[in-house]
Amino acid sequence: MTDAEPTVGELSEGQILRGILDRLPPSTAPVGPGDDAAVLAVPDGRVVATTDTLVHGPDFRLTWSSPFDLGFKAAAVNLSDVAAMGARPIALLVALALPDDTPLSFVRIFADGLAAACAELAPGCAVEGGDLTVSDTLTIAVTALGSLDGRVPVLRSGARPGDAVHVVGELGEADRGLRVLFERFTDATGAPVPVTPDARAELSPGDERALDRQLRPRPPIAEALAAAAAGATAMMDISDGLALDATRLAEASGVTVALDAAALGDDPGQALQGGEDHGFLVTFPPGAAGAGRRIGVVEERGRAPLVVDGTPYTGRGGWDPYRDWDAGRG
Amino acid sequence: MTDAEPTVGELSEGQILRGILDRLPPSTAPVGPGDDAAVLAVPDGRVVATTDTLVHGPDFRLTWSSPFDLGFKAAAVNLSDVAAMGARPIALLVALALPDDTPLSFVRIFADGLAAACAELAPGCAVEGGDLTVSDTLTIAVTALGSLDGRVPVLRSGARPGDAVHVVGELGEADRGLRVLFERFTDATGAPVPVTPDARAELSPGDERALDRQLRPRPPIAEALAAAAAGATAMMDISDGLALDATRLAEASGVTVALDAAALGDDPGQALQGGEDHGFLVTFPPGAAGAGRRIGVVEERGRAPLVVDGTPYTGRGGWDPYRDWDAGRG
Repeated sequence: MTDAEPTVGELSEGQILRGILDRLPPSTAPVGPGDDAAVLAVPDGRVVATTDTLVHGPDFRLTWSSPFDLGFKAAAVNLSDVAAMGARPIALLVALALPDDTPLSFVRIFADGLAAACAELAPGCAVEGGDLTVSDTLTIAVTALGSLDGRVPVLRSGARPGDAVHVVGELGEADRGLRVLFERFTDATGAPVPVTPDARAELSPGDERALDRQLRPRPPIAEALAAAAAGATAMMDISDGLALDATRLAEASGVTVALDAAALGDDPGQALQGGEDHGFLVTFPPGAAGAGRRIGVVEERGRAPLVVDGTPYTGRGGWDPYRDWDAGRG
Repeated sequence: MTDAEPTVGELSEGQILRGILDRLPPSTAPVGPGDDAAVLAVPDGRVVATTDTLVHGPDFRLTWSSPFDLGFKAAAVNLSDVAAMGARPIALLVALALPDDTPLSFVRIFADGLAAACAELAPGCAVEGGDLTVSDTLTIAVTALGSLDGRVPVLRSGARPGDAVHVVGELGEADRGLRVLFERFTDATGAPVPVTPDARAELSPGDERALDRQLRPRPPIAEALAAAAAGATAMMDISDGLALDATRLAEASGVTVALDAAALGDDPGQALQGGEDHGFLVTFPPGAAGAGRRIGVVEERGRAPLVVDGTPYTGRGGWDPYRDWDAGRG
């Protein structure tokens, strides 16, 4: 950023949009950005729709996340919710509320992050609409839309006793990355300090990888669609930690999910409690080959929705922004 | 609000949702709220999608707008963008970012406003998904989705020389209502004061009606769909004032829009410059019966995109949040 760089407060909405539209993936829609609304093709007559918001403070620190990271993450966490239904992501709508001293380069690099996430995770998905407004609090509200392409949607409520419980994707990596941020990228007062390339180079390979997953989650979208095609009976995005999300799936299906701690990796506690991995919890009928790796089985509903090694799970459930945010920003 | 009333900061996301879901219109979707994403039916294989955000400060004052008003307005301004394409609104996704001291009753009454807007403006449209998070700045990001039901979408770019220019809905009423707020509901320092029933009762009938339109805009959705069915060649929501939006339609269509000031009511300046009416600017081919009232004609592109009584329009264009917000809240 230089003194000469314009801020969004000095530009009109149209000028800001002209600065980012050419950095976004090309529209694939019958009517793309620029009219009152987009028109999207969903050949089988059904559209999958979800929305998720990232707020400066509870959801990210600008000291830690680059604009590129934020664009990538805002896309990824929404793409994963579409894929969790067994649907192919086709479009994002991106509503940005920006402080008026935000440099234009922030918006442009944010757009690069959106574009990179679409290209890597969901090729063909484009930003087909959005909204820009001014706010004291940087807020990113993304809606993702998807096409089922004739498939049956995979709900949370479809798990049946005897089904195998699988995970597609990683467990605990994003949480490990968050710990790296708090332990390695804060000063003596606990305030965040920037994640510089030099500082990252000093991390262990495992910590560096975990940090990358925290800043730029990579939900395995294609594998989730393959799981749906392979006959998944239930599926959901693991965003708030395996324990909380497995409990939700169990409650929705009226079953007990019984997990095997030995299948949860070296740190079962982190795997159970850590949020933001955006992998997928999937159940498959008995005998199906499945996808990802098996971590347990679905049982008739017992006294608890979630058991680990046969014992009802009573650990902490996961991140809840209304309980857990400490009001810090950075 | 009483001391005993819980705030959203004291409740989990699930508890907050349980307090509002029963106040929303019943889901009409194949898969409604509660899973990773909703699944919506769009029988002709195309979905119309738009998003618009209301931010505390630039977009509303809590001293003036009740939670019901905000729910109503957040729905209305998005429903109008769907209808402007000639599409029937079928679903809203509502992302709320709330300060943690927000009382639960705020969210419940906000939901009542959403429900009332759907029932009045777009029966059958329901809130099929959403997101709740915490923020220092109350932010309401709504996505609206619609079905074209086999119709051709009506774009901004379809106006042709010789077409008649019509307005469906009101011009300048919401702006008049905003003036009422600034003139009648501020104290000596210019700070907003509450809009009480007693104070409203002292307004002239015209001012009271304009205030109502500012706080709860009522886009004529059914009339917009009728205009599309009657052969509209172009249509758009008039959200930023007739002058700015007519200029946009003219630029998109490569034409000049020529307006007749005498057709713009008693105060053509307010009709041209006032925003937030959320009526519809529509063009019809020569000889069509049209809808709403005729305010001008489409001409071959001349030196200006917009002319009024034959003179290029050079007045102020309308509201732009990046230029116009004074950083106040209230």
